[in-house]
Amino acid sequence: MQVLLVHAHPEPRSFCAALKDRAVATLRADGHRVEISDLYAMGFDPLAKAADFAFRRDPDYLNYALEQRHNEALGGLAPDIRHELDKLLWCELLLLVFPLFWFAPPAILKGWIDRVLLSGVTYGGRRFYDRGGLRGRRALVAVTLGGREHMFGPDAVHGPLEHMLRPLLQGTLAYVGLEVLPPFVAWHVPYVTDEVRADYLAAFAAHLRRLDSLAPLPFPSLDDFDETMRPRG
Amino acid sequence: MQVLLVHAHPEPRSFCAALKDRAVATLRADGHRVEISDLYAMGFDPLAKAADFAFRRDPDYLNYALEQRHNEALGGLAPDIRHELDKLLWCELLLLVFPLFWFAPPAILKGWIDRVLLSGVTYGGRRFYDRGGLRGRRALVAVTLGGREHMFGPDAVHGPLEHMLRPLLQGTLAYVGLEVLPPFVAWHVPYVTDEVRADYLAAFAAHLRRLDSLAPLPFPSLDDFDETMRPRG
Repeated sequence: MQVLLVHAHPEPRSFCAALKDRAVATLRADGHRVEISDLYAMGFDPLAKAADFAFRRDPDYLNYALEQRHNEALGGLAPDIRHELDKLLWCELLLLVFPLFWFAPPAILKGWIDRVLLSGVTYGGRRFYDRGGLRGRRALVAVTLGGREHMFGPDAVHGPLEHMLRPLLQGTLAYVGLEVLPPFVAWHVPYVTDEVRADYLAAFAAHLRRLDSLAPLPFPSLDDFDETMRPRG
Repeated sequence: MQVLLVHAHPEPRSFCAALKDRAVATLRADGHRVEISDLYAMGFDPLAKAADFAFRRDPDYLNYALEQRHNEALGGLAPDIRHELDKLLWCELLLLVFPLFWFAPPAILKGWIDRVLLSGVTYGGRRFYDRGGLRGRRALVAVTLGGREHMFGPDAVHGPLEHMLRPLLQGTLAYVGLEVLPPFVAWHVPYVTDEVRADYLAAFAAHLRRLDSLAPLPFPSLDDFDETMRPRG
């Protein structure tokens, strides 16, 4: 299996980084190939902007998605975008390992999504969800957070974590056609003992080793919608 | 009313920028005071990082939330964070005007949230949701997007837009105690006629003029949870 691991934590010695390292060691020990995009270590630029494009379809007005398609065709994407996109298209599993900031990815990871998930390649027109450009590949999210597990769920104070993660799990990963596996979650991380952390690391390795037995999360199929994206009768 | 408008679009001539300008004109014409944080124009740095802090409670290990509290107390926050935080604490209405990128704020706006919504000031301990640090103030989100209105809703392909926006509306704005008003949405923006755009601008001005008559969205109350954040029996 070819794996792209995208990691985003401002502290290299964080527990989240330990999860990243455990994933790399586990996957490589099992014979998988792993590429790593450690966004803070790379100094990844998260800003979607005009300078991302060598050429302009419209030099007077930036339509980011249109310029993505135009520049992909002409070879005019910024080198960092092109490089990340090549890693993304190489991988069979996209593994995102990050701390939850405001129930969502840190800005540096959001910027990787904004810039690298290219219009025309990963989605476009009616190619999204189960017709998305990355269909046939899988995605797994692993997050660390400060909250306790009982603070998430149907009657819990924050509701189900999967609902908070909807724009990422459904609106991004499933949108581009990826099969999204159940997330791995390390709860209450700043407050737990070393023993609990060791348990999380072992559980994460086990989660990675049973990916084939995990049922992907359910998301919409375009088969259920007509050409104008209205539900079929 | 004192209003902080935070805007994030990479194209200064975008329709989203026109919404921002219309908001400023409408609010000022009605006698309100408006501060503007135009994040792209400011070159706002979205990265949560060690360099955000002049002092360190722990120089060897970055716990971002702890250093926010430590540096706020000692006057060691990066000047751009301090400046934005002052504007936030000054405002009575926080108005976010941005294009939906991947069903979420662009990275530059996510970074504003990551860096400016300071631990210890806007939330902390058991001060969140209706006990959050910004309670008594309101928030309004105005978004532009490419999708059509019929693509959102209970039976629609993407589900309700408010569900996609949950990490922002509930997990961020309501979390810090803000009363969150119903979002203003301009659908299908890259494809609509100038007449439709003019209608959107007029509707946005009308939305801003009837804020007092809009019922805030419902979110959890900590009164319904005990000290450990478990639901009360």
